[in-house]
Amino acid sequence: MTIAIPKSPDDIRSLIADMPGPDTKSADAADAREPQLTKPPGALGRLEELARWAAAWQRKHPATADNITVRIFAGNHGVTAKGVSAFPADVTVQMVGNFAAGGAAINQLCRSIGANLDVIALDLENPTADFSEGPAMSDSEIAHSFATGMAAVDPASDLLCIGEMGIGNTTAAAAIAMALFEGDAADWVGPGTGVAGDALDNKTRVVADSVALHSSDAPDGVDILARLGGRELAAMAGAVCAARYQGVPVILDGYVATAAAATIRAVRNDGLAHCVAGHVSREPGHRRLLDALGMAPLLDLDMRLGEGSGAALAAAIVKGAIECHRGMATFAEAGVSDKEG
Amino acid sequence: MTIAIPKSPDDIRSLIADMPGPDTKSADAADAREPQLTKPPGALGRLEELARWAAAWQRKHPATADNITVRIFAGNHGVTAKGVSAFPADVTVQMVGNFAAGGAAINQLCRSIGANLDVIALDLENPTADFSEGPAMSDSEIAHSFATGMAAVDPASDLLCIGEMGIGNTTAAAAIAMALFEGDAADWVGPGTGVAGDALDNKTRVVADSVALHSSDAPDGVDILARLGGRELAAMAGAVCAARYQGVPVILDGYVATAAAATIRAVRNDGLAHCVAGHVSREPGHRRLLDALGMAPLLDLDMRLGEGSGAALAAAIVKGAIECHRGMATFAEAGVSDKEG
Repeated sequence: MTIAIPKSPDDIRSLIADMPGPDTKSADAADAREPQLTKPPGALGRLEELARWAAAWQRKHPATADNITVRIFAGNHGVTAKGVSAFPADVTVQMVGNFAAGGAAINQLCRSIGANLDVIALDLENPTADFSEGPAMSDSEIAHSFATGMAAVDPASDLLCIGEMGIGNTTAAAAIAMALFEGDAADWVGPGTGVAGDALDNKTRVVADSVALHSSDAPDGVDILARLGGRELAAMAGAVCAARYQGVPVILDGYVATAAAATIRAVRNDGLAHCVAGHVSREPGHRRLLDALGMAPLLDLDMRLGEGSGAALAAAIVKGAIECHRGMATFAEAGVSDKEG
Repeated sequence: MTIAIPKSPDDIRSLIADMPGPDTKSADAADAREPQLTKPPGALGRLEELARWAAAWQRKHPATADNITVRIFAGNHGVTAKGVSAFPADVTVQMVGNFAAGGAAINQLCRSIGANLDVIALDLENPTADFSEGPAMSDSEIAHSFATGMAAVDPASDLLCIGEMGIGNTTAAAAIAMALFEGDAADWVGPGTGVAGDALDNKTRVVADSVALHSSDAPDGVDILARLGGRELAAMAGAVCAARYQGVPVILDGYVATAAAATIRAVRNDGLAHCVAGHVSREPGHRRLLDALGMAPLLDLDMRLGEGSGAALAAAIVKGAIECHRGMATFAEAGVSDKEG
């Protein structure tokens, strides 16, 4: 399927509005097969829902999990000038080098689950504008970043894990979450890479002031993404959108990936139906954001690394769900009694 | 390491008492490496603990996860005569056939994570005695079953997932849990394969009466296992015990596996330090039992299938933890800044 490349925020809005719904025929086929499998009804719990969900959004039954992809989007943020991170902005490009060399956590996790990893670095030498002073991105910047994310999706993949790297981007996530769901800045701001005390207070103030600066004209999700996001967040939103068109269910990683995706949900209520939350991170705003989105995370392991790590671990669960649904024998095939006596 | 084959309950007690402690040198080496890895401190959450735990109990650093084994123990229970299960006892042997043919959920999950699966069927044609009328097992039966479980452990494996199949065995699990931790039978009894209403009331009554029947003389964990357990539960306890001697960390599956393991903990307070709870099942007594044991499950996916399914899914998490610890670059190796500015 060819999808038009967006050139403006309005093109992005149209792309989101035109995303297809689920393939109900494949979902129905999953519903019909599930009760025949050799196990008590419901005994696989959430795995059963996941198998149905994967069929609905892969648009085929049974769903497959042979080709799992992980895409990490990296960006730099002007707001780091305000001292919001415990690590210097140089770490973004250093970590991209570490991904390329195979030394990061996500490299090990991808090898562990047999996933294909690509890292998309978005103009790291030119951080986005400091959103505490003005919009992070221009119209053309958000459109280009969104399009870059769209292009990163492999239409042949069975599942797409979306993650990020970007010093300063939990500040962007907190600002987006607050702009979308209100509440106090302190509810949405957390330690990120490890800020505490006065530095955390400063980060909270920066978020509160930034949201106030950009909220006067009832911005929609795309506006919020442009003003308070960053290139890697726009790219993640683009990947989420394109994956829906291409029949690739999405596993979201942590706070930053979820915040990026939430901007789509703000534009269209069922906009994240093809996504699951891979995990809930220890970054406190993430749990709050998932609750606001009505998404139940698959894992809760106190992780807060980003780089797709929670999503990649969760992919093993989703894969297990798909393999069970596809490969299990039915009661009839196995000659197992399926009821009392 | 050669371990004596137990011939009696007292031999089992001695084996449990003599289990080695952790290898603190390997645990210390994990502690020394962890802060050097290219991530913020603590950002991998529970994965960091797991890597340390695996090193301590594999007795080497770094731990490895190349050889994951799953062992399912199957047994039949005389107590099924009391109508405690929604499925007929024949299903145990039918499901063992399904495991052999590759049609069960655990077969798909093992293939998904690359684990080696063995199924050990324990004298299925001769159910244990009905424990609502007398002890489930004689001294020689428990010793033989425990020894069978010990022999099922592959000393070359990196991780051992322990699960079971046995119509009626959530009744045994509930009885063991109640005998170990008191409370009301209704706190420990759940639907198992799917009993409800009057059948659930009956199951609860059977558990309460059975525990009362066998509790008058302050039985220890081994007594409780013999009287209220079954062959597959004794075998799981044996596998847990032998794995400790052989440097194989254990991932427990659901309620029945945890109840079997809990009998070891009753004999020796640190007896399950080499085990993690792979998941918490929807069977309500399991969460209560894990709380009583102070074990935090890795997964919570509303599963209640048994057959090692939750443990096998959790093995993907433990493997990810081990691979991250072993494979990640250090800050120095990767040229990544590890602190402010």
